[in-house]
Amino acid sequence: MKKTGRRSPPTARTLRAVELIVYDFDGVLTDNRVILREDGMESVTVNRSDGLAIGLFKTMGIKQLILSKERNRIVTARARKLKIPCLQGVDDKRRALLRYCRSHGIGLGQVVYVGNDLNDQEPMLAVGHPVCPADACAEIRAISQIVLKTPGGAGVARELLRRIAGPSSKP
Amino acid sequence: MKKTGRRSPPTARTLRAVELIVYDFDGVLTDNRVILREDGMESVTVNRSDGLAIGLFKTMGIKQLILSKERNRIVTARARKLKIPCLQGVDDKRRALLRYCRSHGIGLGQVVYVGNDLNDQEPMLAVGHPVCPADACAEIRAISQIVLKTPGGAGVARELLRRIAGPSSKP
Amino acid sequence: MKKTGRRSPPTARTLRAVELIVYDFDGVLTDNRVILREDGMESVTVNRSDGLAIGLFKTMGIKQLILSKERNRIVTARARKLKIPCLQGVDDKRRALLRYCRSHGIGLGQVVYVGNDLNDQEPMLAVGHPVCPADACAEIRAISQIVLKTPGGAGVARELLRRIAGPSSKP
Amino acid sequence: MKKTGRRSPPTARTLRAVELIVYDFDGVLTDNRVILREDGMESVTVNRSDGLAIGLFKTMGIKQLILSKERNRIVTARARKLKIPCLQGVDDKRRALLRYCRSHGIGLGQVVYVGNDLNDQEPMLAVGHPVCPADACAEIRAISQIVLKTPGGAGVARELLRRIAGPSSKP
Repeated sequence: MKKTGRRSPPTARTLRAVELIVYDFDGVLTDNRVILREDGMESVTVNRSDGLAIGLFKTMGIKQLILSKERNRIVTARARKLKIPCLQGVDDKRRALLRYCRSHGIGLGQVVYVGNDLNDQEPMLAVGHPVCPADACAEIRAISQIVLKTPGGAGVARELLRRIAGPSSKP
Repeated sequence: MKKTGRRSPPTARTLRAVELIVYDFDGVLTDNRVILREDGMESVTVNRSDGLAIGLFKTMGIKQLILSKERNRIVTARARKLKIPCLQGVDDKRRALLRYCRSHGIGLGQVVYVGNDLNDQEPMLAVGHPVCPADACAEIRAISQIVLKTPGGAGVARELLRRIAGPSSKP
Repeated sequence: MKKTGRRSPPTARTLRAVELIVYDFDGVLTDNRVILREDGMESVTVNRSDGLAIGLFKTMGIKQLILSKERNRIVTARARKLKIPCLQGVDDKRRALLRYCRSHGIGLGQVVYVGNDLNDQEPMLAVGHPVCPADACAEIRAISQIVLKTPGGAGVARELLRRIAGPSSKP
Repeated sequence: MKKTGRRSPPTARTLRAVELIVYDFDGVLTDNRVILREDGMESVTVNRSDGLAIGLFKTMGIKQLILSKERNRIVTARARKLKIPCLQGVDDKRRALLRYCRSHGIGLGQVVYVGNDLNDQEPMLAVGHPVCPADACAEIRAISQIVLKTPGGAGVARELLRRIAGPSSKP
């Protein structure tokens, strides 16, 4: 499944067969920025339109997962609110993803992985549909099947919904 | 009253007859982003120029209402500061709007509804003046009578004031 | 001193005679946005480069003042950090400004007033140098002697410093 | 070593000999903005991609240092998280830098200094590689060897990594 060049865009039909969407957290569901308070407390900025889209993917029967290298209470809080599972503190994202798919009986060809930086490279090369936000780093854009028009944190899942469900759908 | 294509822009005269302005909250009075803190505490970003405009609409005798699908303490806090009513945790926005207008004796033709995403579609089709921010989703832009130049959270009510009261007014 | 059209830009020499700079707060020293937390706590976003510029104006012997319609603890906190006086909860900004100048022996012709919205109109018409940020409302831009290139909160005082002290100065 | 005009861009080879990278804090690792809460508590916005880059510079054996004029608990919190040293409350940045390099046996020619405003001018003129973010002030851009495409807080260290390690590197 490994390919090194950018792949041709998938048809809407292919995308409708997707079984799992994996989201990197920082830079995908956020704008990669962190608000840091004097006492060390951190906040990030997420998007309500992603919340809406993730809810609609669930009603379409598509599984979703947050996969984050950092172990952070913010990821836990966001995953709980979105009511989707998350794997945190993952040093080898590719291995974690392969194990997750095997144990859930999901074929890698039916996986969308949305990543934005170097540590997403290996897992993105392993799945059928590597996707990235508009502001992903050059190495990631180069291996993505879809480069979204939306930058991280501005509604990445929302644009993905439109691409998968089509503009005329009424979810 | 239901129409499916984009309607021709109203004249300033028509807009001056408006009796009620309804604001969706997230994406209209905010930029649709949410600041999420480690411990789950949420914040949103609103605009002082909307506060100024909403105050001036009141002196013009126009009623105003916030209508939000989410039930959230932030909406309550903002409505209290703006001193306008809000309806929260509304699953069927259209029905809630129709009931509100009936009980307040307001004709739907004299209502401006400002929305930005799919769950605003039904109520927007029910009112005389559907309006949306510049960054509303495509489906909502398509049914709006006015697509504002201002994106959500950047002064949507402020631009609406200028359109209704005119640029030369000295509110 | 009252004029209604936009005045021709002042020379650097004229600006060097300035005795007092008055800043509106929201939309001038901030981007006009307010971060609103679930429990009603508010925050605004200010700019370090304004802090630097305001410090340098002081060393040049120019007085500075924050003049805000809202009475808000944030304005107090910011003024204390910048170590300049502030007048808050001012309903009639023009009257407050005239009284301040009289009691400090400052001629209105030597005053820079930086404002961004309708309630700054009257005091701006009263001073020698009305100035506004790039994103001020149309009515305010129309009466300003200098429309800065910087939007509110992005370093308005910093650009003003460059205009008054000149680019080659080494403050 | 003092030069006053902009120097020609260094080759990747020259940059690979870098021994120390010095970061000004506000406007370099942040967007120069400060979030100010009603009770005076401050926050700033930093970037996860800088965290990633700074970690990779460490594995390459390059020393790093935060040098800040302000004494602020936020700088301490950020430096602790990034696990690099910081010098705060530094009135004479040039002198502090010279002393630091002498005591660590680092030649000034092998130092990258990333600064954005007037108080970085003197130390930048003292090092081999003065660098600035895209939105640095004019005086600083004029003396920089590299003007990055990234504005402050948007991943300045991340772009620097790409320039030093090259786009094809797999850090």
